[in-house]
Amino acid sequence: MIEKDCMFCRIIRGEQPADFVHRGERIVAFKDIRPSAPVHILLVPRKHIRSVNELTPEDAPLAAEMILLAHALAEKTGIASSGYKLLFNVERGGGQFVFHLHLHLFGGWRPQ
Amino acid sequence: MIEKDCMFCRIIRGEQPADFVHRGERIVAFKDIRPSAPVHILLVPRKHIRSVNELTPEDAPLAAEMILLAHALAEKTGIASSGYKLLFNVERGGGQFVFHLHLHLFGGWRPQ
Repeated sequence: MIEKDCMFCRIIRGEQPADFVHRGERIVAFKDIRPSAPVHILLVPRKHIRSVNELTPEDAPLAAEMILLAHALAEKTGIASSGYKLLFNVERGGGQFVFHLHLHLFGGWRPQ
Repeated sequence: MIEKDCMFCRIIRGEQPADFVHRGERIVAFKDIRPSAPVHILLVPRKHIRSVNELTPEDAPLAAEMILLAHALAEKTGIASSGYKLLFNVERGGGQFVFHLHLHLFGGWRPQ
């Protein structure tokens, strides 16, 4: 359930600091330490799941909950109607660097 | 449930051609007509939902099913272990151009 050396498990356990915007029963969310958009939040299930490749049908409701929560956080940060992106990077070639399932919420760009 | 002038509803109804890779009970998948990766598949629920902003808790299981299906299609096309990206663009400022919920599956890049 929890991996000793996983950076996100350490954050969830409070052993490493993070700028939390949400702490739920199953999912936490915090600001990306190296933001690549004006708003860049990571949504992370408390359960250690390596990546989308390891998401079982039993755990799939977690993914739905992550997407609903991302929308709620987009509303809360005022970027929902202007628009945002939700991204799962899957495995190394897909740009994943922390091997604990997470969803990127990007937004807050100025209107073009 | 179905929008007359929605391009994806037209594809789902068979009124517009598409290169389908999956036709399921609730979700279809077809190749993006303007691919931005060697593998670029769009996963689209048959139900017309405008965007993640309009996804209700009742419809959220669809989102989970889309993600599981994306993984299955990544396996089928041989890109799962090398890696891929799953992206929801939400509303105009988030890069959404067809206002019918869809998930992009990108992958198949050569190893760097």
